Amino acid sequence: MSEKIVTAAVLVIGDEILSGRTKDRNIGYIAEYLAKIGVDLREARIVPDIEEEIVAALNALRARYDYVFTTGGIGPTHDDITADAVAKAFGVEIIEDPRALARMRSRYNSSDLNAARRRMARMPVGSELVDNAVSPPPGFRIGNVIVMAGVPAVMQAMLDAAAATLETGAKMIVETIDASAIPEGRYAEALGEIAKAYGETVIGSYPSFADGTFRNQIVVRGREAAKVAEARAAVAAMLAAIHAVPNPPAPKPD
Amino acid sequence: MSEKIVTAAVLVIGDEILSGRTKDRNIGYIAEYLAKIGVDLREARIVPDIEEEIVAALNALRARYDYVFTTGGIGPTHDDITADAVAKAFGVEIIEDPRALARMRSRYNSSDLNAARRRMARMPVGSELVDNAVSPPPGFRIGNVIVMAGVPAVMQAMLDAAAATLETGAKMIVETIDASAIPEGRYAEALGEIAKAYGETVIGSYPSFADGTFRNQIVVRGREAAKVAEARAAVAAMLAAIHAVPNPPAPKPD
Repeated sequence: MSEKIVTAAVLVIGDEILSGRTKDRNIGYIAEYLAKIGVDLREARIVPDIEEEIVAALNALRARYDYVFTTGGIGPTHDDITADAVAKAFGVEIIEDPRALARMRSRYNSSDLNAARRRMARMPVGSELVDNAVSPPPGFRIGNVIVMAGVPAVMQAMLDAAAATLETGAKMIVETIDASAIPEGRYAEALGEIAKAYGETVIGSYPSFADGTFRNQIVVRGREAAKVAEARAAVAAMLAAIHAVPNPPAPKPD
Repeated sequence: MSEKIVTAAVLVIGDEILSGRTKDRNIGYIAEYLAKIGVDLREARIVPDIEEEIVAALNALRARYDYVFTTGGIGPTHDDITADAVAKAFGVEIIEDPRALARMRSRYNSSDLNAARRRMARMPVGSELVDNAVSPPPGFRIGNVIVMAGVPAVMQAMLDAAAATLETGAKMIVETIDASAIPEGRYAEALGEIAKAYGETVIGSYPSFADGTFRNQIVVRGREAAKVAEARAAVAAMLAAIHAVPNPPAPKPD
């Protein structure tokens, strides 16, 4: 296993997410996907369909992380401006890509391949296609930026295709310890001591609330299996000691 | 109605969102909530539990937008560092706020109010409490930054409390026109012309995919009711003209 750490950011492009009309489901999907293949998602941003906003965010993110995944804005309508913005961010021309056009010709009837749809074959010079089985127009990759659709089913197919071309790094090992019966405030101090003692791991405490009940989970993450196992055992022992105290108060939100 | 435009950003703080472990549900909720009260959400970012990342993002966003809403990182555990990061971003001290402590004293048994829980009374100097009925510790507001919990039920209660203190602006009027039976690529060109002709509105086309079917919706947004109504009528007429063409191909993703 490579010991390199590979980082990424997600850039969601779309007024509809910021207006609340559409709820983003791509960030969570990409986060989970990248964790599984050994890429660390370090940041995500959501910006509107405004060229200078897309360019500024993309340039900030692509300079800082190994990969940037964008979603949204690659359809046939006037508000789909991602390809133009990416070309501008890279300082290259945008052209009708003959490979993309050929691909679309094979999937559309010729009478359906109108000017609006042909816009979806436009890509920055130097792009590689990110093909997929779901939608006729492909996504594309230029440099370390992977440009994908916003519709989750299409995005997911494009991510599968793009993933094959990615360099991946050491995977995070993740251990989750259920601490539901104990409110965070009761174990917080002891957990902080464990977090200090096992600095090679990252330890988080995550409350959630569902069906009228608060639940806490403690998560230990790290790249060295032995360290993660040690930290996990320390957390479990700490929780057992707290459990042993009689009459613990019922969990409530902290 | 005020004609002022009031803008906002959301800053989600938490490793658990970037690792994919927890799916963010707060951005969409806040987006929809702010739209309803007349605040435009312009950007959202997700950053990890790393102080310098939080400080940098917060300073970028609070300089640029009327309000910044943060979620996450205000619990009792060692990984809850939002209050410290906000104090650092504002360049002020962090203190145990006597009002917050009094509030927590009224909600916790004295034996439960241990050192870890008292951490949740720490706030940057100059903060106002953002009280709520769900969790004993309050959120807080300093300047134009509103600091809220990450657990959705708690965040939502804090947002209700904070909303009463916000300046709000002209609300967006939003009209949605169903275009499900027509693939985007068939109306994209005509819609682009309408978007140009009605520049006081923002017109978007949003495909989605569920139960094996692609659906398109066209959304017209603007602050002048008459202009939105005119643009909406133009879109409806355009779609009717396309519908009138015999044997339209079945919708498929563009």
